[in-house]
Amino acid sequence: MSIAEAHAAEPILLREDRDGVATLTLNRPGARNALSRDLMAALKAELDAIAGDRSVKVVVLAAAGPAFCAGHDLKEVRSRSDEPFFKALFEQCSELMLTITRIPQLVIARVHAMATAAGCQLVASCDLAVASDTAKFATPGVNIGLFCSTPMVAISRNIGRKKMMEMLVTGEAIDAPTAETLGLVNRVVPADALDAAVAELAGRIVSKSPLTLAIGKQAFYAQLEMPMEDAYGYASAVMTRNMLARDAQEGIDAFIAKRQPVWRGE
Amino acid sequence: MSIAEAHAAEPILLREDRDGVATLTLNRPGARNALSRDLMAALKAELDAIAGDRSVKVVVLAAAGPAFCAGHDLKEVRSRSDEPFFKALFEQCSELMLTITRIPQLVIARVHAMATAAGCQLVASCDLAVASDTAKFATPGVNIGLFCSTPMVAISRNIGRKKMMEMLVTGEAIDAPTAETLGLVNRVVPADALDAAVAELAGRIVSKSPLTLAIGKQAFYAQLEMPMEDAYGYASAVMTRNMLARDAQEGIDAFIAKRQPVWRGE
Amino acid sequence: MSIAEAHAAEPILLREDRDGVATLTLNRPGARNALSRDLMAALKAELDAIAGDRSVKVVVLAAAGPAFCAGHDLKEVRSRSDEPFFKALFEQCSELMLTITRIPQLVIARVHAMATAAGCQLVASCDLAVASDTAKFATPGVNIGLFCSTPMVAISRNIGRKKMMEMLVTGEAIDAPTAETLGLVNRVVPADALDAAVAELAGRIVSKSPLTLAIGKQAFYAQLEMPMEDAYGYASAVMTRNMLARDAQEGIDAFIAKRQPVWRGE
Repeated sequence: MSIAEAHAAEPILLREDRDGVATLTLNRPGARNALSRDLMAALKAELDAIAGDRSVKVVVLAAAGPAFCAGHDLKEVRSRSDEPFFKALFEQCSELMLTITRIPQLVIARVHAMATAAGCQLVASCDLAVASDTAKFATPGVNIGLFCSTPMVAISRNIGRKKMMEMLVTGEAIDAPTAETLGLVNRVVPADALDAAVAELAGRIVSKSPLTLAIGKQAFYAQLEMPMEDAYGYASAVMTRNMLARDAQEGIDAFIAKRQPVWRGE
Repeated sequence: MSIAEAHAAEPILLREDRDGVATLTLNRPGARNALSRDLMAALKAELDAIAGDRSVKVVVLAAAGPAFCAGHDLKEVRSRSDEPFFKALFEQCSELMLTITRIPQLVIARVHAMATAAGCQLVASCDLAVASDTAKFATPGVNIGLFCSTPMVAISRNIGRKKMMEMLVTGEAIDAPTAETLGLVNRVVPADALDAAVAELAGRIVSKSPLTLAIGKQAFYAQLEMPMEDAYGYASAVMTRNMLARDAQEGIDAFIAKRQPVWRGE
Repeated sequence: MSIAEAHAAEPILLREDRDGVATLTLNRPGARNALSRDLMAALKAELDAIAGDRSVKVVVLAAAGPAFCAGHDLKEVRSRSDEPFFKALFEQCSELMLTITRIPQLVIARVHAMATAAGCQLVASCDLAVASDTAKFATPGVNIGLFCSTPMVAISRNIGRKKMMEMLVTGEAIDAPTAETLGLVNRVVPADALDAAVAELAGRIVSKSPLTLAIGKQAFYAQLEMPMEDAYGYASAVMTRNMLARDAQEGIDAFIAKRQPVWRGE
């Protein structure tokens, strides 16, 4: 945290927990929520804490102010010119993005406005994303001579090659409906319906067994990177383990008996 | 086969051959065509037999009754609780799905109704899929505490990550037009046009050289899992082999002479 | 070049440079721009020359006559029947396609009409593609007994599996709007707006730092073939290198100072 920020009234990252949902809000609105090293560290620390917190079943990643997230903090970046600093910076950012996919809870991006560069990468890195029709998405690094190379790792695993390349080399933004068509977000709603849509999606997930979700999320990303035969061998082992858990036996019993299951997360 | 089923009038899997097309029909309508171990074994055995049957050029995978396929047979699954049983069960299922991609003939799913869990995986595993507008698709395992980990291996290789994750963690069904938009099925037609649409697609494929189709289908799945340079080396070797076959020489001669080719499948 | 072609008034490949954009035009209109060995060699040679030509910032790949490109030259193919010839032919073609992805400049396909087989592969191999509404795309090799195995390497990395398989086994063409929906082309415009649309897209790219584009293009294809963690390690190193270049420092300074950057390509 910079001295100015430490003295500010509000922290750069807010957290509010309710009904099993932890909402993390990027809170540097004056800087368009640029991912300063402090903000990345705060977000990473909060995600790490949540990973071991059984009271949290879903994470919502939101942002305050006129932008969702503008990517790296360019003033901070430009304040240095040494390779070790840049290397550490981009590695810290990549580690943050991977952490989102590694924690056991599902993470939903709540995108109300422009998400650019590493901000767009944040959306792509979340497991799910709900956008308002006022959201936009761009990888404009090319406009400042710095190609969005780390952002494209996440985004190009969500959308097709031709459109990804176009975003990367033109720097132009796409609107929310286009982002949905391409597969970058799950759904688009009017701005005044955004909170309700996020709450509805989060609520449906909260009602599931957290153990089942954790097993599934981890397996999802792991199998995507395997040849199909290996993926089947891996996924069969995962399902066997899942089947031996108490929640699966309870879930199947409840289904057969036509009653609601009671999850214990074990 | 259970004793009840063995005594039933009809077998659990039907096969009808006509004009080079073998139609396999899942026939446990009362159980929503749940993939019991017997049904999986019957389907696998039929596919293995078809693999060596030169009279069959296309396979249509259909289903009888109010559902296409409900996935695993939960009563059968819940009747046991030992790891070796589950391991064998999921491996049998995975092997069945891989068999669909391995036989030389093209396999078309004819989806007239709800396809869930391993039933949705069946559709994803087929080379092509035609759905009626009454079809739906879901991976609802999460609702019973058993994440659809093996189904996602096939389905996530057909549709994008965000929508796949949404299906997996909410358990909600998507309708047929959405399945087409996402890439899970090739086309959607009114229910009363489903047989005609399947027959039309099958007929077009039957008119091709079965040797060419077999070479191509195998190469298609193989190259998808390679880095691009390796894929080109592999595919160049495949095309060379294809080019040396009699059917390619006949096909090119016929094209140049503006006449219909006569395939011999060699 | 064949003797007939050598005596023809025009070369089989045209090149015109203007404002940093090199337009290469396939010019065998009478043969529907079929990729004869001579035409592939000419195109490869021109791309290799452009790779080292700092005056060229964008390549447009266009074609003359009623077709964009009909794929291999079947008369030439059928004139031989020996394995070494076919092997060399398909390897030459694959090498050409890979060259498009390897040169530092962005390559835009300008597709005004039918692109089939290796012609469709050309479009898929370009970094970007703009099509007129009169364009069509097909992999009809199956109709002549020769499965489009090398074309599918490029095309199946642009579009989903089910639709790709349908194109491959039916040989049927898709129209331009469908190609855009599937992800094979970036945009579709009326035929009389095609040149303007290509020029507009090329112009936007020409305004960027050629160094940044070259770094990004290379990294784009490289990271796509890596597991996500490796991709992040690689992309972080790429961004560090990019950040240390003069153009990134200039770009960020210009952004902060709200002025236009001046690229030096270093």
